[in-house]
Parts: sequence; structure tokens; C-alpha cells
Amino acid sequence: MKKIDICLTPDLIHQHDLNGTVVVVIDIFRATTSITTAISHGVEAIRPVASLGECQELKTKGYIGAAERGGKKVGGFDLGNSPFSYMNPDLEGKKIAMTTTNGTIALKKSVGALQVIIGSFLNYSALLAYLERLPCDLLLHCAGWKGKVNMEDTLFAGAIVHGLKQAFAHDSDVPLMAENLYKQHKGNLKSGLASSSHYNRLLGMDLEKDIDYCLKLDGCKVIPVLKGNYIQKMKLDDMLF
Amino acid sequence: MKKIDICLTPDLIHQHDLNGTVVVVIDIFRATTSITTAISHGVEAIRPVASLGECQELKTKGYIGAAERGGKKVGGFDLGNSPFSYMNPDLEGKKIAMTTTNGTIALKKSVGALQVIIGSFLNYSALLAYLERLPCDLLLHCAGWKGKVNMEDTLFAGAIVHGLKQAFAHDSDVPLMAENLYKQHKGNLKSGLASSSHYNRLLGMDLEKDIDYCLKLDGCKVIPVLKGNYIQKMKLDDMLF
Repeated sequence: MKKIDICLTPDLIHQHDLNGTVVVVIDIFRATTSITTAISHGVEAIRPVASLGECQELKTKGYIGAAERGGKKVGGFDLGNSPFSYMNPDLEGKKIAMTTTNGTIALKKSVGALQVIIGSFLNYSALLAYLERLPCDLLLHCAGWKGKVNMEDTLFAGAIVHGLKQAFAHDSDVPLMAENLYKQHKGNLKSGLASSSHYNRLLGMDLEKDIDYCLKLDGCKVIPVLKGNYIQKMKLDDMLF
Repeated sequence: MKKIDICLTPDLIHQHDLNGTVVVVIDIFRATTSITTAISHGVEAIRPVASLGECQELKTKGYIGAAERGGKKVGGFDLGNSPFSYMNPDLEGKKIAMTTTNGTIALKKSVGALQVIIGSFLNYSALLAYLERLPCDLLLHCAGWKGKVNMEDTLFAGAIVHGLKQAFAHDSDVPLMAENLYKQHKGNLKSGLASSSHYNRLLGMDLEKDIDYCLKLDGCKVIPVLKGNYIQKMKLDDMLF
């Protein structure tokens, strides 16, 4: 049977063999939710970059610059990491260079996989429909917070494990633990996260509407996929079956 | 308020500042349970060593040699990793050199802490009574399985977080997640672990009696503590308050 596993933080990616594996990058609050939102609202491509310098340089080459550090938009850039800012019709057909505290690191550390795709609660069902038919193993790569494991990414990974129970087996404990956690809180994810760290960091920045949006199930049907340096909408010929 | 945190695997120990912190090493199946059993049955001291070679060398110097790899006793040594083998009255007052797949690595990687102590379900209440009075921060260091996060160590760490709620706060998500997991399964730890990896590995080796013993609450009142190269019974003047 095909295998599913979870990497709880980019700091543990060395434990996983990416070769021949599809990786789903998860940064619920908020990078992968924002990327999914952007792509579903017509953004042509997002180029994830590690540093503010690279992001600035691409801005001078015609990209829209999106930069977030510590939850806040960095001065001098057009966009931060709030999904609402990616719903702007002016962004349709545009290219965005994006750097965030955690999400872009997880993306960079996923390079080498057979395919890297972007997961969030927004495109949960679309993801499941694609993933269950994959002919290969699957790794759920949680971005965490500055290398530390976080709860919202783990919960979402647990939701994916739960949704793919019939199609994938696991032989490590992390999928089991994450699925347990998800089953415990799936009736009310928000209250399950009420004591968690990044939830409270966002709340402290008056971003409860971002939290609510990031936990909303199935607003989008797109699957963003990394193709070379760019994240774009998955098309029929990107599908691995 | 004093802080509590969890290191889910020795592979993440670099994220934690051990300086001024008390570390509890946790390897439920079975190293820390066996160490607690040995010390409570009168073993004088246990010297944890990383390699089979070191263990062999200490054996020639009069130590009892205990060596486990992959769940099995290594040929040529006196003891493996089953807690029952440490109940032998012949071991009273003896020194044991011990190397195991995971536990001794977590111990070695905890060096530098203010104090390193040994935790297991067997000495849970004794541990809580000591830990809650500590004047410093606390790190629960799970040994895992070959670097991977496992469920039984995480569950026990969650039990400690739960028991110390009034005395310690946490600002990372792992203690929250581990406590959630513990609360979900505390009524029946064994059934909670029924799909977990090392549980099934031990079951496959016909070691269900070891599993039952390792999940038994409060059989021992001793707290083993690392003093220099040796694990010994904690005495009054080892206490940090």
C-alpha cells in the first residue's frame, strides 16, 4: 500500500526521502492559505524566495513584492501575508515574489520531491480528490513557526491523513498522533486552537478574520503546484496519474 | 511563571536552551522504564554509553553489560532492555554499563542541562512531586525511535504537562498538543497506543508483558538522576530546592 507520512517541521526534513514522493506544504496561518487564495483569484504565478533581498530584487524586475516577517508585512513591499490582500482584482494575471517567515522555507526544503503542492483548509477536498489517486508515497510537510512544531499545521496534516485512510497506510507514529488530534478537534477547530501560539499571535495583531478564513473548509477548488521556480494552478497535464 | 516545553525527538534538541533547565529524559518503551526499575531494585549506578564498543570495554572493567539494538538484546551482553531483567537481586549494589537504540542518545544529548533526570509512568507521581517545586524551567526530552517522534513518549510528556498545569506555563504548541493527546487516551493508554509503531514492534517480539509493565502507573517512588557519567537514585542533597 502507498505510504503517507508527516514532517512536523522543516527542521526534521532530513528524516524523509523526498525522491519519488509527492510533498504537500502546509502553512495554515497563513502562507499556504494566502497562496491558494491568490492562485484561485487569478494570480498567474508566485515565486517563493527565502530572503527579503531576493524579493526586493524581483520587485525591481516587475514582480509584485510580498514579504512577511513575524506575522507582519515588511515595509517597502506591496503585500504581506493576509489572504484578504490576495483577493484584489488588480493582481489577476500578475506574478508575485513572496517571502514569509515559515512557508517559503518549507517550500525550499521540499525541492527534490516528485511534485510539491500547496495545501490549506480552503482546498481540502480538492486536495483529497487529487492525492488519493496518486501512484506514489506522500509526505505532508508542516512549515511550523521558526522551526518549531505548531498545532494548526499538525491539525491540517491530521485532516489529510484522516481523509486518505482508505488509500494510504503509515508506519510511523506522527500520522497517527496528528489524526488523533484532528479527530479530537474537528467539530470546532477554532476552539481547539484557542491556546495555541500563532493563533494568539494573530489575535494580538487584531487578525481574527484571517484566522476564521484560514480555518474555513473548501472555499477553493484549485491546487497550487510548484513548477520550477513558480507556484501555479495545477493543470490536467501536471497530474501524476 | 516557570516554563515547560517538550523536545519531541533528540533530532530537535538544537531548538532548546538547556542552560539552567532541568531535563527529563523519556523512553517509555523501554529504556527509562528499565532504568527506573533497576535503580528501584537496588542497582548502584547505570552508566549510559553510546556504542556497543564502549559497553563491551566497561564489561571488561567489572560492569554488568546491558545492550539493546532494535528492541533486542545484543549477543555477548548480560542484559537487554526488558525491565523484568533488572529485577534480579544479583544486580543489587552493582554497576551497569548500558547502551540502547534511543534512550542513551537522548541522555547524551541532554548533557549541559542543570540536571538530567529519568522519567517513566512507573515514577510519575514521584516525578511530579519533585518537578512542581523546581525553581527553574523544565524540558521533557522524548527519545523517540531512531530520531523519529513516537507516540508513547509524547503521551507521557503530555501526562507530565497535565500534572504540572498549576506550576508551569508553556508558550509553544507541543506541550498543548501532547497534553491534548494524553487527555484523549488517559483512560486507556494501551488501546490509545494499539496502532503505534513500537508497541507493535514489541508485540511482534512477544513482549506484551513489557508493554503492560511500561504503562503501569506509579510502581516506583525513586527518581533516577544523572550525576557525571552515572545514573543514580536521587538523594536529598541532589534536590534543587
